[in-house]
Amino acid sequence: MATMEEIAKRVGVTKGTVSKAINGAEDVSESLRKTILETAVEIGYTRVSRSGKTRRVCVMITNMAYEKPEDFGAELILGFRQMAEPMGFQVEVIPLTKELQKNTAYDEYMLARHYDGAFVLGMSFQEPWMEGFSKCRTPAVLYDSPVLMNPAVTSISINNFEGMNLAVSWLKELGHRTIGYLGGALGSYIYQVRYAAFFNAMRENGLDADENLAGVAYYAADCLKQHFQRLIEAGCTAVICSHDLLAHATVIHCGECGIRVPEDFSVIGVDDIPLCRHTDPPLSSIRQNRVDLGRSAFYALSSQLAGIPVSTLTLHAELIRRESVGPPPIQEYRTAHLTADVEES
Amino acid sequence: MATMEEIAKRVGVTKGTVSKAINGAEDVSESLRKTILETAVEIGYTRVSRSGKTRRVCVMITNMAYEKPEDFGAELILGFRQMAEPMGFQVEVIPLTKELQKNTAYDEYMLARHYDGAFVLGMSFQEPWMEGFSKCRTPAVLYDSPVLMNPAVTSISINNFEGMNLAVSWLKELGHRTIGYLGGALGSYIYQVRYAAFFNAMRENGLDADENLAGVAYYAADCLKQHFQRLIEAGCTAVICSHDLLAHATVIHCGECGIRVPEDFSVIGVDDIPLCRHTDPPLSSIRQNRVDLGRSAFYALSSQLAGIPVSTLTLHAELIRRESVGPPPIQEYRTAHLTADVEES
Repeated sequence: MATMEEIAKRVGVTKGTVSKAINGAEDVSESLRKTILETAVEIGYTRVSRSGKTRRVCVMITNMAYEKPEDFGAELILGFRQMAEPMGFQVEVIPLTKELQKNTAYDEYMLARHYDGAFVLGMSFQEPWMEGFSKCRTPAVLYDSPVLMNPAVTSISINNFEGMNLAVSWLKELGHRTIGYLGGALGSYIYQVRYAAFFNAMRENGLDADENLAGVAYYAADCLKQHFQRLIEAGCTAVICSHDLLAHATVIHCGECGIRVPEDFSVIGVDDIPLCRHTDPPLSSIRQNRVDLGRSAFYALSSQLAGIPVSTLTLHAELIRRESVGPPPIQEYRTAHLTADVEES
Repeated sequence: MATMEEIAKRVGVTKGTVSKAINGAEDVSESLRKTILETAVEIGYTRVSRSGKTRRVCVMITNMAYEKPEDFGAELILGFRQMAEPMGFQVEVIPLTKELQKNTAYDEYMLARHYDGAFVLGMSFQEPWMEGFSKCRTPAVLYDSPVLMNPAVTSISINNFEGMNLAVSWLKELGHRTIGYLGGALGSYIYQVRYAAFFNAMRENGLDADENLAGVAYYAADCLKQHFQRLIEAGCTAVICSHDLLAHATVIHCGECGIRVPEDFSVIGVDDIPLCRHTDPPLSSIRQNRVDLGRSAFYALSSQLAGIPVSTLTLHAELIRRESVGPPPIQEYRTAHLTADVEES
């Protein structure tokens, strides 16, 4: 393990100066401090907690609402705090701007601010730090972002394969056979996972996993405009959407097209955001339990701090059954129409 | 949550009798005790730990050596104990025979023996309890066995996808392009996973993921007899084996065929059992860190006991590089032969 002596030798200063720079003393110039921190990170020096000292961890958050108690991020943070604080950890929440990421590497930031590890929310492929996470040495737990091959990083999520399986099994049980998928664009990792999980679930349930029954786009309105009519024409009696907002948009779109939910068509979302209970009809959804995810993120981070290199951790998914789902109508519906035609003639 | 009162009402006895039966008092007949336990399990009654009481957990083990300290199972148990005992848990190790499984359901066994949860090793599809784990209510952490859709069960393993990726990337870096796979029969879940992970790694590394370059069989000798010659003829310069014993058998088989390891052919196993260091040449292997797996099994079980439904937990894989791997020889080898031919003529 790298020591302060090695940093001092490499930079050509005393160990005292290194210690001052790392501890943020004011009598070290900002440029020397930066050189020392960069060198420290380069040779693999990370903060080693002295026993008895309060351990400091942070939740870093980007691209995710967390201000209001019901916000997705707020519940993740709550769960994390519920586990961390009783164990004597000090938890700070840091909004993670692109600017912050561009100015400082993750390891450097953690060293300079005396954090032992981080729970990172809302990281997408496009974020500047994303690449760095494949090589960092300070423990990090990432929510819904995949970083493999780095022992210091754990990825946590719900078990999306199980979630899609629960949803498809339920629809199959009700009699649905042709089920469509509408999703966010596949540039996002999590939408890639859910897309794959949907087809996996269709195969596992012995249903037709036809890629023509899926459609993706960045915006919900585009997704519906480009793909919805095709799914209806292909005979879909139900659709699973990659996220609740798209599922909600689908329900509204059905109304505009004169398709009744759930009498004519069933809709399921993913996440179970608070909105689901208040839509008309209330929306079925594959739930992500945010508080439990936050709690298990702390378990994963404490494993990392104990030297156990957890790679992935998934939580069991839960299916919340609400009124946006019913049995498929088409057969009776068609029969009814047919009977009407016969009677008329 | 089900209570003793409900059990008493259902069976038609007093609450005191239920309590006696569950606590193993001698003045309850064996047949009444069995009825009470079965009813308890049926209505979902599980042991609720009273705070302050020592919590009891067990490690149940089948099909796996654990008697000697270096045995695979012994290291898993050691890691589990290292975490559990300092936290005040009492840990007992129970050999899990088929007879025990046939006589009592898992939940009943746990209730009768006062265990809060179990770490279960060596479960295969064929074991009598396997099906029951999809519905049990007492927390269980299973090593290398897949149980989805049950919130009370966690599956732990190393990240086999990452492990295969590390092995294939290394071989590719050394210049190998045509890489084969030899494996245990696909009736075993873990061999299915490693087989899939191998092809996934080939694709991710931009190499030809040709199913003809893989061969599986139940016995190592059969696997080599049936498939080895084909891999050589297809131009493979390296092979990854699903487990170290098969990799070792492959090295011996190479010797018998006059193929030098690693000069002519490279071999990598999975597990990194102690044998790997002592073979000739020492065997490269994708390591399963048994102690860390045991430690993380305890993390998963304590998550379960805290009501956090962890579905899967994987540990980062580690590649142990030893002398059974070298750069591919074929090109120079062939060139050398060609030059020799030219000089001769």
